[in-house]
Amino acid sequence: MSGAPQDTLARLRAVADGTLRARDWLEQCIARIEATDAQVNAFTLKAWRRARDEADAIDAHRAAGRALPPLAGLPYAVKNLFDVAGEVTLAGSRINRDHAPAETDAVLVRRMREAGAVLLGALNMDEFAYGFTTENTHYGPVRNPHDSARVAGGSSGGSGAAVAAGQVPMTLGSDTNGSIRVPASLCGVWGLKPTFGRLSRRGTYPFVHSIDHLGPLADSAELLARAYDALQWPDAQDPGCHARAVQPAAPHLEQGVRGLRVAVLGGYFDEHAGPAARQAVQAAAGALGATRTVQWPDAALGRSAAFIITAAEGGSLHLDELRTRAADFEPLSVDRFIAGALQPAHWVSRAHRFRRIYRERVNALFREWDVLLAPATPVPATPIGTEWLDLNGATYPCRAAMGLLTQPVSFAGCPVVAAPLWPSAAQGLPLGVQVIAAPWREDLALRAAWQLEREGLAGMRTPRAMVTG
Amino acid sequence: MSGAPQDTLARLRAVADGTLRARDWLEQCIARIEATDAQVNAFTLKAWRRARDEADAIDAHRAAGRALPPLAGLPYAVKNLFDVAGEVTLAGSRINRDHAPAETDAVLVRRMREAGAVLLGALNMDEFAYGFTTENTHYGPVRNPHDSARVAGGSSGGSGAAVAAGQVPMTLGSDTNGSIRVPASLCGVWGLKPTFGRLSRRGTYPFVHSIDHLGPLADSAELLARAYDALQWPDAQDPGCHARAVQPAAPHLEQGVRGLRVAVLGGYFDEHAGPAARQAVQAAAGALGATRTVQWPDAALGRSAAFIITAAEGGSLHLDELRTRAADFEPLSVDRFIAGALQPAHWVSRAHRFRRIYRERVNALFREWDVLLAPATPVPATPIGTEWLDLNGATYPCRAAMGLLTQPVSFAGCPVVAAPLWPSAAQGLPLGVQVIAAPWREDLALRAAWQLEREGLAGMRTPRAMVTG
Repeated sequence: MSGAPQDTLARLRAVADGTLRARDWLEQCIARIEATDAQVNAFTLKAWRRARDEADAIDAHRAAGRALPPLAGLPYAVKNLFDVAGEVTLAGSRINRDHAPAETDAVLVRRMREAGAVLLGALNMDEFAYGFTTENTHYGPVRNPHDSARVAGGSSGGSGAAVAAGQVPMTLGSDTNGSIRVPASLCGVWGLKPTFGRLSRRGTYPFVHSIDHLGPLADSAELLARAYDALQWPDAQDPGCHARAVQPAAPHLEQGVRGLRVAVLGGYFDEHAGPAARQAVQAAAGALGATRTVQWPDAALGRSAAFIITAAEGGSLHLDELRTRAADFEPLSVDRFIAGALQPAHWVSRAHRFRRIYRERVNALFREWDVLLAPATPVPATPIGTEWLDLNGATYPCRAAMGLLTQPVSFAGCPVVAAPLWPSAAQGLPLGVQVIAAPWREDLALRAAWQLEREGLAGMRTPRAMVTG
Repeated sequence: MSGAPQDTLARLRAVADGTLRARDWLEQCIARIEATDAQVNAFTLKAWRRARDEADAIDAHRAAGRALPPLAGLPYAVKNLFDVAGEVTLAGSRINRDHAPAETDAVLVRRMREAGAVLLGALNMDEFAYGFTTENTHYGPVRNPHDSARVAGGSSGGSGAAVAAGQVPMTLGSDTNGSIRVPASLCGVWGLKPTFGRLSRRGTYPFVHSIDHLGPLADSAELLARAYDALQWPDAQDPGCHARAVQPAAPHLEQGVRGLRVAVLGGYFDEHAGPAARQAVQAAAGALGATRTVQWPDAALGRSAAFIITAAEGGSLHLDELRTRAADFEPLSVDRFIAGALQPAHWVSRAHRFRRIYRERVNALFREWDVLLAPATPVPATPIGTEWLDLNGATYPCRAAMGLLTQPVSFAGCPVVAAPLWPSAAQGLPLGVQVIAAPWREDLALRAAWQLEREGLAGMRTPRAMVTG
């Protein structure tokens, strides 16, 4: 199995027309995972039995002559903060092992099943989603399929690496400050962080209720759009789900950027970009006809406010266990969780107030522009264990710095596709470009992403360094 | 002018059919205000010029033979935290006097104008809406029209007293923890706190973004419903407005409680009710056929969490000025604002997390019940300056205790009508009953309220103690 993206869309058609059995596709994925995961370390749960049942059900459905749902047979896996019925939702932690198994699937897992997709298991992540590198102490680091010595990004590191390694063509992840876009960038796959409030979060382990998003990662822009369309039904039972109607994106991809006003984000987004990141954005800008550079308002303040809220809500969520079981936490997280919980309430309230003004300022940008481009990470994947990052003459703590460019964007709530580019300065590694649209306009970001793919500028590549199955 | 509620509905019909000029109705109100407000102290802004322009425009419209909007000619006034174009939005403070005048009307003021209502001015309130008694140091206390030595309730004290005194038949107020329902209860008028997120808050001075509501007060249940219907259009530009469609309530009032399951809240709501409050609820229960008593889940915890969030957000909002101009604040507020802003972030995050569980538990009640009844205040209006309240053997700080029964309900987001009853134990003073429905079911609360009015059990009474104009 090559895992090439064109294969996935062809296979979906083949399942639909009866020339490929879902079970056969599944078994190829299982074989690939078994052959590669000792190296990648993406899977924390291998649910082969459930997967075979789901695949067989699709095949039986087809054999009975009934119409198949849109993603029938699609193998996928989920970050291990999604509830999977009968399994403990680890959220990358040791502490959650004591929890009872989930009684039902998360809403998005249910939607994937209704769309005919086949769930293979759950994926490694930063503990409690607090991190950008998935150097998980409890379950080991996820290793970048393009270079096993490097990080896969995080916190949805397993979700990025599993797609990059050709283990599954699609995964689900979560993104509070960049946790889908960073691994998509570092692993060279497509990722979508939808508008804040678009997708139901019921049945997932929370991190920062005020900023958490869920979304898909995939091996092509079209699959990303089709998966998103399957996920985006409003959920009246989730008070955090503010979607008002389904707005299908996949049918409109072929419009590309026709009629859209595309610009590049300068200032903060250029200052925090290394050479490969600048090269990637320039290439994307060229392909999409973007000639103007615009300023994102208050990006550094937006990042600071997101940091304050993240630490406060994340720390508070875990404070009771930090008091009694600190040694069972990820060592990198303990101090920042505690510090976050003990901030004065004023800082957090002020960050929330700033966010409302910030959103208005960001939204105003989209009166003039439809799509904005920025790097997803300052640099390509760094070696596992890297502590410090030199960037344009300044030194940053490396792990936190991976979110420098994603955090201001998600804090405004805008939908973003991370598109995988391969700039020469990255020397064989990928680097993602954020394709950003106004809130509720995922369709525009996906159209621009699709055009980058069609022009051959962005897309997944089979890892040269991978063990082959 | 008697100010009796039946008059208002008859006058609305008279304006519509051309037998009453809006300008004449307005002048009667102006005369009443001029005659009574030295006693009541409800108005902080008398916008006679604007009012005459608006009334004359209605009359010109009518004279030209054009159809009039539904509330054409209705005189009303707003709590002085609503923006009124050209006027400084005081929010009951001395500090805001330095602010620039508002450039445009608040959204709800614009809607009232579109509905044909005539704005007479702005009304006294607790400074920054932090209080339940409107003992405002800067602008003087609002005095209860039924007994000038007593409070009108707060923080929308002017909004309650202006209706009770017959100055205007309708007002707008705001309610974070009870600020519409408490003055409605103590002044003996109708008040509606809609579902959290129902009405646009754009153009109003905030207090606690996470809990603030706006709503109408009126001299009859039907007028309350009609005003609410004029206000309830969704506002896509207010991210805090989650209404999805207009659901008119007034056309359904005459169904009353037919087919509705009505119960009385016991436990916490009985323990914190004095004799007059218990009497009022029993009378309402009898009229609506409620025989069962049910428990509201975690009422005391709900109140605590609302307190924490209120103090944190309110304190944070004003902290910069507390640092430099503490002496210009309401003396009763300074310490609690500062303490609120300095709480650990964990307390506030935890209160928000609790709120989500709390809402689910409260919502579950409404699977079995459509309407729940509870007192709006523990006792009738207390004398201005009262510090302590004895209630069922316990002693409470009087001002805060006025919100004991409203705070747990608004924190869950449920819509509530405060219906004015006149229990004999209140000795000529009114006491409100909260008529509570599930989120987004204002219509049911209004139907039950309407039935209380039709049966003669609840309704406004002309103050015996008032100066007559």
